[in-house]
Amino acid sequence: MGNFKEDIALVEAIVLDVDGVMTDGGITPTPEGDFIRRYNAKDGYAIAYALREGLKVCVISGGRGAMLENRLKMLGVTRYYLNCMDKIAAIEEFLADNHLGRENVIYMGDDIPDLECMQRVGIPVCPADAAMECIEASRYVSEFNGGHGAVRDIVEQVLRAKGLWAKNLKGVLGVGK
Amino acid sequence: MGNFKEDIALVEAIVLDVDGVMTDGGITPTPEGDFIRRYNAKDGYAIAYALREGLKVCVISGGRGAMLENRLKMLGVTRYYLNCMDKIAAIEEFLADNHLGRENVIYMGDDIPDLECMQRVGIPVCPADAAMECIEASRYVSEFNGGHGAVRDIVEQVLRAKGLWAKNLKGVLGVGK
Amino acid sequence: MGNFKEDIALVEAIVLDVDGVMTDGGITPTPEGDFIRRYNAKDGYAIAYALREGLKVCVISGGRGAMLENRLKMLGVTRYYLNCMDKIAAIEEFLADNHLGRENVIYMGDDIPDLECMQRVGIPVCPADAAMECIEASRYVSEFNGGHGAVRDIVEQVLRAKGLWAKNLKGVLGVGK
Amino acid sequence: MGNFKEDIALVEAIVLDVDGVMTDGGITPTPEGDFIRRYNAKDGYAIAYALREGLKVCVISGGRGAMLENRLKMLGVTRYYLNCMDKIAAIEEFLADNHLGRENVIYMGDDIPDLECMQRVGIPVCPADAAMECIEASRYVSEFNGGHGAVRDIVEQVLRAKGLWAKNLKGVLGVGK
Repeated sequence: MGNFKEDIALVEAIVLDVDGVMTDGGITPTPEGDFIRRYNAKDGYAIAYALREGLKVCVISGGRGAMLENRLKMLGVTRYYLNCMDKIAAIEEFLADNHLGRENVIYMGDDIPDLECMQRVGIPVCPADAAMECIEASRYVSEFNGGHGAVRDIVEQVLRAKGLWAKNLKGVLGVGK
Repeated sequence: MGNFKEDIALVEAIVLDVDGVMTDGGITPTPEGDFIRRYNAKDGYAIAYALREGLKVCVISGGRGAMLENRLKMLGVTRYYLNCMDKIAAIEEFLADNHLGRENVIYMGDDIPDLECMQRVGIPVCPADAAMECIEASRYVSEFNGGHGAVRDIVEQVLRAKGLWAKNLKGVLGVGK
Repeated sequence: MGNFKEDIALVEAIVLDVDGVMTDGGITPTPEGDFIRRYNAKDGYAIAYALREGLKVCVISGGRGAMLENRLKMLGVTRYYLNCMDKIAAIEEFLADNHLGRENVIYMGDDIPDLECMQRVGIPVCPADAAMECIEASRYVSEFNGGHGAVRDIVEQVLRAKGLWAKNLKGVLGVGK
Repeated sequence: MGNFKEDIALVEAIVLDVDGVMTDGGITPTPEGDFIRRYNAKDGYAIAYALREGLKVCVISGGRGAMLENRLKMLGVTRYYLNCMDKIAAIEEFLADNHLGRENVIYMGDDIPDLECMQRVGIPVCPADAAMECIEASRYVSEFNGGHGAVRDIVEQVLRAKGLWAKNLKGVLGVGK
């Protein structure tokens, strides 16, 4: 395990939990058996951006629902395990299928069911309001809460470390400003 | 009444109000006569965990609705009184049916209709944003608001005091860390 | 105009705006032409309580929708003006019909369309996050935001000043505790 | 580029992004392919007010949905580009159609896709919680977050600078108070 900034520049895949990571943990079961969750537009922009730049993004969640699948498809996430009761088996399969070394994988989780996966990857991270056990197990704790920019924060950091973030905006942004 | 940590280690049942406890008090009546509420994923994890470990969980609420019942079933809560206008009668029945002594029961409430039940049990508790009367009547006031982790906080504390929290995670977490 | 505590003890009617007062101002238009708003359970408890104790409660709002009407009926509010473009005419009618003197009426508003009504009554009040003009026009600014307890705060203060709040709870609460 | 207060007094048009500007960025895809967003009543009041006073308001967003269109129609916004993948082309068309000089146009954006438009207009602005790149590119950063009054803040400032804000309320408000 090296320097955090150097390590995230080598990241090839980002694995995300849903409730408490892509959302603030708020959940409304509907009468039809689905679940209303609120996602974050800035998180979504970063996930879609990362996929376009060739990073692998995988979602592993105990949660489920057509509305959740819609959100993932809308972002372009094609690899996901929902209603998942064995997260460690899911991540092992994902790593094996993509020939990924653990050192090149980030996992962002926020609660006990994420702990085993967080220990499995090289770069466990979590939102500011994660369970204490996740905070202790993380190499990086975002200053942002789940659903309020924690995903954006880590994805943006990875893309910045790789020199891929806002790369066409140098002229727009006015370098040196 | 003894030491709080010792007392909660002996808890056998946790009784919860809904609005302002399992939610932040936000409520949206639907045209169909149901009510949209947002629950908290970390609260839910703790409730399901407690039930698996053999604790009794009972919900007593003046609120109602199919969406609320769905949430309770999803968590595995089988004992609940909804649309309840006589909370003290409900808790008496629950205590009698389960042969529970008042000293081994927690009640988490947040407003005036909960006060009588809070005085009935050995361990009245409330969220940080409860009504002043509930705060005064509580042996423990969570640092978290309703719907933002107050339920998780108290359930986790009970399970920790009993040595049941995250008990299979010792290897994962790294004891002594 | 006398002392605020003395004046609110004489209040006979409380007039409320909806968006930004009974809610945090968040609004979601539905495809069917209705509007999703989130109300606050503690606000609702206080409004129903005030009605039971004989206070008049009137709602005057530019907002509309079946879901809003449902909420008002659920609380027992029978006097309301929705989709109201002439708030001052509405409050005049309400005052006249109920033979109310302006000095015995509270109006809680949060934005420019409420200003004329706020000047019409004896006790204009507003949530902490009201528009600057409303804050300047108010005799009392709640420490709570709209939808987060501002209504509860003022209703509870009125009932306390009248000796009606939690009046059956003296034994329950333990006087002098 | 002159003094900010002088410049906004000359503003003829305000261009707004949706997610993270007119909302807090929270988004819930529905099973029917629409998107639930929460708008802000005080923002809405200011937008409708500005339109009545003759300002042009244009919305340019990568977002879409019937519920979003409903909101815009409800506010009286008739010029909007939704599901827009080329924001710079949209704003160019809007400026040309209305013979607007860039110096008289405000653009409020919150994320990378807004940057090019922000550089195109004379007065780029953003909410307090905008992406760092937008904050750097802005002449004015609101103290309010997206969906929590950032739009109200800038629209109100423009109307105040023009002497159009609350102009019929001088008697009501008590000038010099």
